[in-house]
Amino acid sequence: MSLPRLYDLAGADPAIRFSPYCWRIRLALAHKGIAVETIPWRFTDKAAIGFSGQGKVPVLVDGETVVFDSERIADHLEARHPDRPSLFGGAAGRALARFLHHWTVQMLHPEIARLVVPDLFPRLAEPDRAYFRASREAAFGLCIEELPAQRPERLAALARALAPLRALLETQPYLSGTAPLYADHIVFGAFQWARVASPLVLVAPEDPVAAWRERMLDAYGGLGRAMAAAA
Amino acid sequence: MSLPRLYDLAGADPAIRFSPYCWRIRLALAHKGIAVETIPWRFTDKAAIGFSGQGKVPVLVDGETVVFDSERIADHLEARHPDRPSLFGGAAGRALARFLHHWTVQMLHPEIARLVVPDLFPRLAEPDRAYFRASREAAFGLCIEELPAQRPERLAALARALAPLRALLETQPYLSGTAPLYADHIVFGAFQWARVASPLVLVAPEDPVAAWRERMLDAYGGLGRAMAAAA
Repeated sequence: MSLPRLYDLAGADPAIRFSPYCWRIRLALAHKGIAVETIPWRFTDKAAIGFSGQGKVPVLVDGETVVFDSERIADHLEARHPDRPSLFGGAAGRALARFLHHWTVQMLHPEIARLVVPDLFPRLAEPDRAYFRASREAAFGLCIEELPAQRPERLAALARALAPLRALLETQPYLSGTAPLYADHIVFGAFQWARVASPLVLVAPEDPVAAWRERMLDAYGGLGRAMAAAA
Repeated sequence: MSLPRLYDLAGADPAIRFSPYCWRIRLALAHKGIAVETIPWRFTDKAAIGFSGQGKVPVLVDGETVVFDSERIADHLEARHPDRPSLFGGAAGRALARFLHHWTVQMLHPEIARLVVPDLFPRLAEPDRAYFRASREAAFGLCIEELPAQRPERLAALARALAPLRALLETQPYLSGTAPLYADHIVFGAFQWARVASPLVLVAPEDPVAAWRERMLDAYGGLGRAMAAAA
């Protein structure tokens, strides 16, 4: 039987995988102990995932089943492999992990994007750049080249946004408690995106968030750390 | 056997109970089906809870056991009554509820305080007012009387802070899923504080957060709604 296939957002160098949502699923698959074949995909490769009925990754092809959207893929993996380690630790853990999804998307991603997109842009495949520039500049209300001048304020805004995570990680090693679950994968995806995109230091080394990120880089046999950081 | 006793922050009128942390515990006790005797307490009544070894409420006296701090009281109730409905739905649910605690304290409480404190202040017992004014004005960097002029910006900031909760409640009826658990009690405590303190409308009626708050007011036999809203 062939491995599940994950369409995974890539840069000009196909080894560069930077989607925060795809990283969530990479870690979720590792958590379940499921090997996967990842297929590098670019924003403009709409035809390659047309079979999924939509145009974004992650897309998981799992035997006969095609699933898109990271939250739906996580639910699919949990339902399909109930005998493997749980991603959620029960219904309440699943429900609250969904809060972490929305918190990450609404509070962390916009801050991280403004910080790392200037360094990510030249790493994109050339055909992706026009789409990427237009969509991000519309979201930011600024040219990509104007973003670096704002970094001091944006780093301070990110530090404020991270306050509840910082307080939590002062009292427990993972968001999910004593070991990582999908809520950790969700938040780690955002940091892995930043790490692959930019050498910028987003979190002070003494911050409990930095220590957690190091633990997550080591988790699952060092899956996260195996992806080279931007230099 | 006598009922557990909860020291519960009160206004000049002892029927006015406004502490967000005490409301969490009122709901947690109701969730567990445990009747409680609440004892009205004021900020300046340090002597009345001196037996707890500290000076803040909630303090729960449960038989021979004295517990303070809402997070510790919730853990105590869960450990003491494992046969009653769970507050957390397992270890992962407990760990992630702690994130909701920090998010509520760091992101919601400061915004709600700036909005409702001007209306809460005249409802406080006279001996509490000097302490309350000094501590809150130090935190805000403003006089209480200067806060109402900022309401338009603060309401907009609260709406932004609520974005992840709003998105979550568009897809599920409670933070904890299909029924409320302690994570819901945590966030509801903040809204109940606002409701008791001030007639200000903090959330638009069409916001999914408002519909959730109505469900929470009705939960546990209408425990939250039985406390009169500020007029």
